[in-house]
Amino acid sequence: MTIGIGLLGLGTVGAGVAGIINNPDGRHPLVGQLALKRVAVRDPQRPRPVDLPAEILTTSPEAVVDDPAVDIVVEVMGGLEPARSLILRAIAAGKPVVTANKAVIARYGEEIAAAAAEQGVYVLIEAAVGGGIPIIEPLKQSLGGNRIQRVSGIINGTTNYILSRMADEGAAYDAVLADAQQLGYAEADPAADVEGGDAADKIAILAGLAYGGSIERGAIPTEGINRLQSRDVNYAAQLGYVVKLVASAQFLGTDADGSVQLDVRVSPTLLPKEHPLAGVHGVNNAILVEGDPVGRVMFYGPGAGAGPTASAVVADILNIAGIREASGAQGGLDPLLAANRWRRCRLVEPGATRHRNYIRLHTTDQAGVIGKIGGCFGDEGVSIRSIVQFESSTAGSDAEIVVITHDVPEANFRRALAAIEALADVRTVAACLRTL
Amino acid sequence: MTIGIGLLGLGTVGAGVAGIINNPDGRHPLVGQLALKRVAVRDPQRPRPVDLPAEILTTSPEAVVDDPAVDIVVEVMGGLEPARSLILRAIAAGKPVVTANKAVIARYGEEIAAAAAEQGVYVLIEAAVGGGIPIIEPLKQSLGGNRIQRVSGIINGTTNYILSRMADEGAAYDAVLADAQQLGYAEADPAADVEGGDAADKIAILAGLAYGGSIERGAIPTEGINRLQSRDVNYAAQLGYVVKLVASAQFLGTDADGSVQLDVRVSPTLLPKEHPLAGVHGVNNAILVEGDPVGRVMFYGPGAGAGPTASAVVADILNIAGIREASGAQGGLDPLLAANRWRRCRLVEPGATRHRNYIRLHTTDQAGVIGKIGGCFGDEGVSIRSIVQFESSTAGSDAEIVVITHDVPEANFRRALAAIEALADVRTVAACLRTL
Repeated sequence: MTIGIGLLGLGTVGAGVAGIINNPDGRHPLVGQLALKRVAVRDPQRPRPVDLPAEILTTSPEAVVDDPAVDIVVEVMGGLEPARSLILRAIAAGKPVVTANKAVIARYGEEIAAAAAEQGVYVLIEAAVGGGIPIIEPLKQSLGGNRIQRVSGIINGTTNYILSRMADEGAAYDAVLADAQQLGYAEADPAADVEGGDAADKIAILAGLAYGGSIERGAIPTEGINRLQSRDVNYAAQLGYVVKLVASAQFLGTDADGSVQLDVRVSPTLLPKEHPLAGVHGVNNAILVEGDPVGRVMFYGPGAGAGPTASAVVADILNIAGIREASGAQGGLDPLLAANRWRRCRLVEPGATRHRNYIRLHTTDQAGVIGKIGGCFGDEGVSIRSIVQFESSTAGSDAEIVVITHDVPEANFRRALAAIEALADVRTVAACLRTL
Repeated sequence: MTIGIGLLGLGTVGAGVAGIINNPDGRHPLVGQLALKRVAVRDPQRPRPVDLPAEILTTSPEAVVDDPAVDIVVEVMGGLEPARSLILRAIAAGKPVVTANKAVIARYGEEIAAAAAEQGVYVLIEAAVGGGIPIIEPLKQSLGGNRIQRVSGIINGTTNYILSRMADEGAAYDAVLADAQQLGYAEADPAADVEGGDAADKIAILAGLAYGGSIERGAIPTEGINRLQSRDVNYAAQLGYVVKLVASAQFLGTDADGSVQLDVRVSPTLLPKEHPLAGVHGVNNAILVEGDPVGRVMFYGPGAGAGPTASAVVADILNIAGIREASGAQGGLDPLLAANRWRRCRLVEPGATRHRNYIRLHTTDQAGVIGKIGGCFGDEGVSIRSIVQFESSTAGSDAEIVVITHDVPEANFRRALAAIEALADVRTVAACLRTL
């Protein structure tokens, strides 16, 4: 049985997908049953790394979606529109969709999921998070017996590359960013990466799958690395930590109506050096899932790139093809793969969470300052793991004090911090980061 | 739709599975559609951690398999017989099987797979390798678009625990093994773990899935850690390596008839400290899959234990239940999940492989020894990465020389080693290990 594939877009990922489908040798035999039937491109004349018969190319993406020979629509054109409309058009035609388009899923995921559920078709998105790392499918299909306690990950390669170099070289953020841009690891406009928005898009997707409900993307507290100072990376290293941009979703409890309470956030975070995520270097990604009874499992690999992304897209195509072989084109949906929402998720108020914290204070170099700071924390019941005074690098009589707290209620921590800021000896709270 | 589960065995894993099925809250809703219908136990009177109605317990495993209310048979009793016969009985009755029994799959996998293919039922084995780590399913379902170049892993928790402690404490193998036995991390008879047999069973399963063919288990060169000396662990550390028991399966090429040539082996192996597998500590497992075009992806987590294993067993149950919901009880098989063999795999002769090598030589402390050793390697075209003379810890005029080679043909390396052993200044080749 041949399964017709329609490709929307023939950029690097699209060409990678076409290359796999057209060279099935040595891959799973199901790849050999896939056939590229129609491919939408902007300019049919442009030379491409993959050789396709001219008659399957078209400049009309609608023609791809509507082609009766196309059984599965693969959207790898990127951008919001016309990608969103084309996905909805495919769903309306009863055709399953595979997309690598995180931006569309993060913004229109609910609309797309609702349409897919109504039509009874799959919309699969393995490539949208973690590049080539199988993470969407394992979350959907392998961990369903668990109560998920936390999903945390390094899911933005650009920022991890920058942080790795800051840690290795003691370099400043701006300098590494400029270099990363030159090397092509960061975009000319790096805002979506360095301000944490891309990671927030992705953790919204992962948390939605892990907890079975829709995550309010706009409500995710998001802090990037763009204000991170190399000084804090260096102090963290001296204290046995690595700074990473961590996106996490933690289960806090259940409301009376069965809604799940979650703490979902993106923030630069200190990880103890022996933490599984601490060893993730460069543009690699890793996602740690903690569940009962599985414990901690981690998925690691290249978080971006044409090859890894194409591998993930083909994984989704094969899954749809495999189920179609089992159940026929008119079969029902596998509820694991379809991943319909099954409960409500809500993000708790920031003050209602608990965290370990790292703060750096700029203080006068007076005897007794540490005692006063400790007193402010003690008054709020915030227990401290360590207070260390570092040699001040600025001239004069100032000091730098780094405090790491135990796991404490956010509200108490904030009150203590306000009291510390009001101390005469404290000039500024120069940095405030999470610690795992 | 309720799906009836029959459980063969109610030990720690079986009780874990029963506990998940009987407490579906907060798990995927499909768990709520599973119902324990019949459970085979040896002694119905024994108190158990999980509360089951007396009428579903039976001492007859055949009664579980034959019960018409049982849709899926879950074998968690362990051992070879009657486990094998019961699995075959379930298959003959057209019932899908989930098993955590690596021993049965490693020994009777072909017989079981053939019977399952003939009857058109699934036999799923996620729990047989890597404990709670989702690895079987990702290999089957998420990486099918790839040409797999290598699968390598730390897949025996006992030996990794022992090696971690040898590295951390500089302790001797025998002392750590005795302690591990006391702590319950190693069996009273540790042979299957420390001699590498367990890891060989598992890499045979992983390689069979990665390359789509049956692996001749008995032909896998297998070396354990039972003759490893702490001295080599320490020298490796000084040279920037960690010693791990690595099981690997590497693609070497394809025969004219399409058969795949593989180098499959289990051996103590030096890993550069920055290698993804080098950071896997204690009883954790990790499997690294290298493929084109995905690159390197790694799966990490607890390699054993009742909870993780139960999570993997339930993953398989859910997958069968999910597909059944899509295609009905009479539907066909998803070829990805069924994982039928689709090509022949053969292990190449050991001399036809290539490796990096670590050797430790016991030599006289004469000027010129290093030159002679280097000459023997040079004569065979074996290029050397480093030669280091360590201070001899034994009395007298002896020296210890450690050589690490580049990636070289095994046959040439063996010839060079024979020439070195014949040198008058060389007392013994005291250790010979692989290096990645």
